[in-house]
Amino acid sequence: MKLKIAVLSGDGIGPEVTKQAVSVLKVIGEVYHHHFEFEEALVGAIAIDKTNNPLPDATLELCKNSDAVLFGAIGDPKYDNNPDAKVRPEQGLLKLRKELGLFANIRPIKAFESLLEKSPLKTSIIEGTDMVIYRELTGGIYFGEKKVSDDGATASDLCEYSQFEIERIAHLAFKAAQTRNKRVTLVDKANVLETSRLWRRVVTQLAKEYPDVALDFLFVDNAAMQMILNPKQFDVILTENMFGDIISDEGSVIGGSIGLLASASVGNDNALFEPIHGSYPQAKGKNIANPIAAILCAAMLLEHFGLKEEAKAIEKAVEQSLENNIVTPDLNSVRNFGTDYVGSAIANFIL
Amino acid sequence: MKLKIAVLSGDGIGPEVTKQAVSVLKVIGEVYHHHFEFEEALVGAIAIDKTNNPLPDATLELCKNSDAVLFGAIGDPKYDNNPDAKVRPEQGLLKLRKELGLFANIRPIKAFESLLEKSPLKTSIIEGTDMVIYRELTGGIYFGEKKVSDDGATASDLCEYSQFEIERIAHLAFKAAQTRNKRVTLVDKANVLETSRLWRRVVTQLAKEYPDVALDFLFVDNAAMQMILNPKQFDVILTENMFGDIISDEGSVIGGSIGLLASASVGNDNALFEPIHGSYPQAKGKNIANPIAAILCAAMLLEHFGLKEEAKAIEKAVEQSLENNIVTPDLNSVRNFGTDYVGSAIANFIL
Ligand SMILES: CC(C)[C@H](C(=O)O)[C@@H](O)C(=O)O
Ligand SMILES: CC(C)[C@H](C(=O)O)[C@@H](O)C(=O)O
Repeated sequence: MKLKIAVLSGDGIGPEVTKQAVSVLKVIGEVYHHHFEFEEALVGAIAIDKTNNPLPDATLELCKNSDAVLFGAIGDPKYDNNPDAKVRPEQGLLKLRKELGLFANIRPIKAFESLLEKSPLKTSIIEGTDMVIYRELTGGIYFGEKKVSDDGATASDLCEYSQFEIERIAHLAFKAAQTRNKRVTLVDKANVLETSRLWRRVVTQLAKEYPDVALDFLFVDNAAMQMILNPKQFDVILTENMFGDIISDEGSVIGGSIGLLASASVGNDNALFEPIHGSYPQAKGKNIANPIAAILCAAMLLEHFGLKEEAKAIEKAVEQSLENNIVTPDLNSVRNFGTDYVGSAIANFIL
Repeated sequence: MKLKIAVLSGDGIGPEVTKQAVSVLKVIGEVYHHHFEFEEALVGAIAIDKTNNPLPDATLELCKNSDAVLFGAIGDPKYDNNPDAKVRPEQGLLKLRKELGLFANIRPIKAFESLLEKSPLKTSIIEGTDMVIYRELTGGIYFGEKKVSDDGATASDLCEYSQFEIERIAHLAFKAAQTRNKRVTLVDKANVLETSRLWRRVVTQLAKEYPDVALDFLFVDNAAMQMILNPKQFDVILTENMFGDIISDEGSVIGGSIGLLASASVGNDNALFEPIHGSYPQAKGKNIANPIAAILCAAMLLEHFGLKEEAKAIEKAVEQSLENNIVTPDLNSVRNFGTDYVGSAIANFIL
């Protein structure tokens, strides 16, 4: 297979971990005889520093002309505590999602056997957890009209949804459920929000096309509890943008290390793969960041293009490194290795 | 002291647990020579059934003419899965909050020593947790304009905030921090939402009036993780309505039983005290619901009116019942007691 992959490594630890993901993909290309072409471009705070634009036109162009985007991380503390900043790194990511039409963010959450004791949750609670969250990514309060009054004393954000925005991601969620445990849980706040009631109506209707999948509903406040009380109960969670942001990050604590979690953001014509850990600026350049999430993004990318065997090979190599304790400091404070060492070890396990 | 208390026990297990809270308050009245006057009124699904209105005028009138409201729970499954229902129990609670001007919801979260092993989190993670969440309760997306298009294919909810709405609750949060560990954490999504940026500006400015209190910021997605990874780090959390709904319910899992958690909703002229467990319809009428949250609401009520010694007496009685294992089935599946038995036991420990 021939794939053109845009590499947007971004800020903080993004470049270090993305580099390892690219190396692993190169090894896969060699071993399985695929032709992967990589091209790098700027995004985020580093793009602002160099071009005053968190998503330069050249970057967007490259992404549109690529089959997939391998994304690192964006964000820099110098922008976070400045509510008056006019340009923010996050705008780059949000615009990219919108322009590429990446309407579904997919986050698998699993408890890795070898890491159970790392979790803040009891082993009995998390053992066997295997869910996937489908978060709507290009609608809702993220992209609705924003206003500030002239005197700066009032502000508003509009949360809007249309039937077609709900349907296209709901179809993905139900199709995923068909290949899994055949349950979709819609997380919303239908007792308060009109948009949530629209989600319930649309999803209830659409569920009839999937008679083999059970649909249930959970208010987001209750979901935030159930996620911790009994994460095993979930198969596929479907939810809107803002709730998905919160619930999926909450879910990321289950496995014991956020450094292991990958996500895919998919649309009709493009797909972007991103570790969920973010830019983690405190670790930047120290060669301590965990490259596994980025490497598992590479696996999700291959899976997305139907390269199942190749994806499995990466997952197996990751498990081998975990089992052999070839891990970064976040997973073992006593005996640990650098980002590059762990990345190479995983690449070598594939060979 | 003379206090007129409106008793709105509502739906599900509300009546059973509120009854125990009233009994405990009566005992406190006798022992400490206060005159507490109780009057009951309808709210929620039961009010809809009887009057077609989740908050009848007579109920609102009574609350306005009372010093405080002791609230049970509202909600009935027959309304939850009907997105087309025109009248919903929740509207009663939301209208009550708005009409009484209860702009601050206050939820203490503590790990009870005798219940540490009940938590889904490891003891090492939760031991010593002692935070309080200040959630804005009469603004934001809960009360902004709601729209549905004529064809029902699009819907919207508006999230709005004004400076004064933020200031009045922020003052309460900073004052609380002054009597505690002197830290306020503002939870928001300032990298995406205009309203969150308003919160940051207003709270940053107001913090200058409290030089003895440290202020920090956390994005809500990160907060949802930190709440589980390291709940001990928090002292006072300040946040807007929707984020507060999610984060405070998430936080309720820390202590191991949601049946223990009370909340106060306060405004300038009134205050309402409500267990956070909700109506729990499956347990209704079975005499198995935990009355402790409702009883601790009574303690918060007394504390609110400056009756510290009386509040402490209730808390001590609750601890005694826990230590003596006089608890409902949620806390001990082997040896347990009924709602009324546990309530009486706690009342007796006060005598
Ligand atoms: C960086 C931020 C805008 C983004 C979001 O909120 O969507 C991030 O938290 C994520 O989940 O990818
Ligand atoms: C019942 C519901 C409207 C309410 C809310 O969302 O505020 C409840 O969840 C709460 O937190 O008191």
